Amino acid sequence: LKGVVHLKIIGEKINGTRKKVAQAIQDRDAAFIQDLARKQAEAGADWLDANAGTHPSREADDLIWLIENIQAVVETPICLDSANPKALEVAIKTVKKTPMINSISAEPARLEGVLPLVAANKCPAIALAMDEKGIPKTKDERMAIIRRLVGETRRLGVADDQLYFDPLAMTMSTSSESGLIFFSTIRAIRSEFPDVHITCGLSNISFGLPARSFINRVFLILSMEAGLDSAILDPLDQDIKIAMLATELLLGRDRYCLKYTRAYRAGVFNK
Amino acid sequence: LKGVVHLKIIGEKINGTRKKVAQAIQDRDAAFIQDLARKQAEAGADWLDANAGTHPSREADDLIWLIENIQAVVETPICLDSANPKALEVAIKTVKKTPMINSISAEPARLEGVLPLVAANKCPAIALAMDEKGIPKTKDERMAIIRRLVGETRRLGVADDQLYFDPLAMTMSTSSESGLIFFSTIRAIRSEFPDVHITCGLSNISFGLPARSFINRVFLILSMEAGLDSAILDPLDQDIKIAMLATELLLGRDRYCLKYTRAYRAGVFNK
Repeated sequence: LKGVVHLKIIGEKINGTRKKVAQAIQDRDAAFIQDLARKQAEAGADWLDANAGTHPSREADDLIWLIENIQAVVETPICLDSANPKALEVAIKTVKKTPMINSISAEPARLEGVLPLVAANKCPAIALAMDEKGIPKTKDERMAIIRRLVGETRRLGVADDQLYFDPLAMTMSTSSESGLIFFSTIRAIRSEFPDVHITCGLSNISFGLPARSFINRVFLILSMEAGLDSAILDPLDQDIKIAMLATELLLGRDRYCLKYTRAYRAGVFNK
Repeated sequence: LKGVVHLKIIGEKINGTRKKVAQAIQDRDAAFIQDLARKQAEAGADWLDANAGTHPSREADDLIWLIENIQAVVETPICLDSANPKALEVAIKTVKKTPMINSISAEPARLEGVLPLVAANKCPAIALAMDEKGIPKTKDERMAIIRRLVGETRRLGVADDQLYFDPLAMTMSTSSESGLIFFSTIRAIRSEFPDVHITCGLSNISFGLPARSFINRVFLILSMEAGLDSAILDPLDQDIKIAMLATELLLGRDRYCLKYTRAYRAGVFNK
């Protein structure tokens, strides 16, 4: 996908909140982690998310172990997925390439603990549209938080294009407006802050519903139309890859249909 | 799909330009046509397109034969797919329910030959955004044609909501702007003529490209987001059905996710 799709991909698979990954971290099963790193890099991820789980006494050590194993097999930059400033600080010293930070938000702990690391190390960073009161319901409240965050990041010299805003999708199962609020927040960010990036994960939107993968995929398509230019996803998921290729084609981002037809010849559509 | 999706579906399968259907018409194979009618009606089509092919000496007879066979097995209204005023005139007398007419356009022959039948019989009608010079390249030229057509239909007392405008997709293989032009034409129609319907077929967009079904499906999803409220498609296509359900869910048209979850329980997602 790298250089093929316009969308920047953060590979989501090395995440310690997933059972198998947590087990691999605990067992120091390097081969398991390296396999996930290699496969996602080959599939074209622009960054590899690394989440060591949130056990406070172990997170820093576990994160370093993840980073070392990932870096042993791939060149892809790492997205450090932690809310723990201490773990992030040592991790930033361990990575070979400038990492992405996942994430900052308007929560005071992240503003005080994580944002200074982003600024000092000139890292790209995922920025969540939430504060200490949680995720607001409306687009306008999310935009108020985003404005406040941009104020803080600019004050610390973080360039707008270092920021990857996640408007934060709420599940459709609690409100049938969730999708529309998400898409309209994307459009509002795109219009008010043209230089920032917009990213999201694909699974919250379908939480609690059956046949989730179909919802997640259409959610990606509609988000791309609204202005999403990055996503946290599984780059090995063939259906998602096809949806991205077809969407970029139809949105006029595939001159002469070359990317789509090349993907076809490369066998992307063979199941 | 009937009453399940917001989108109004015109079932496309009984079309004499398809080889098997042409053969069935020639052989007077009623069982073949009735099977297509029954299956599309059961799948929830709001209208069944009936196209007898364009052989001038046979079209009227063949169309009557199609109509009689369709009406023998289903109650679904028929969409009379012909540019031939003579064939349409006898067909309108044969149908039990008010038919849809496919199609009028700004071509003089259709304005003079077909539009009066639409007006006199108070039929819904598909209206193509083209004139005698063909399909214009830009959104603005298509809108000029659409404005001219609406002037004519209003003059003859045709209500705006009888009209199903087809902005006419050109294939992506000749211009990477084709999709964007199509979507922006939908938005322009929606904004200037809020009461008209907007429809389209799904296959032109991918003409000449490989792996067409993926493009067609994403095209439908993006068109629905832009304001499409009807489509000419195969209601038996499960992947399209799923795409419609997921899109309506995400666009806030499925209160409490009931349609999606009911479709799941009814086995729509089992392949």
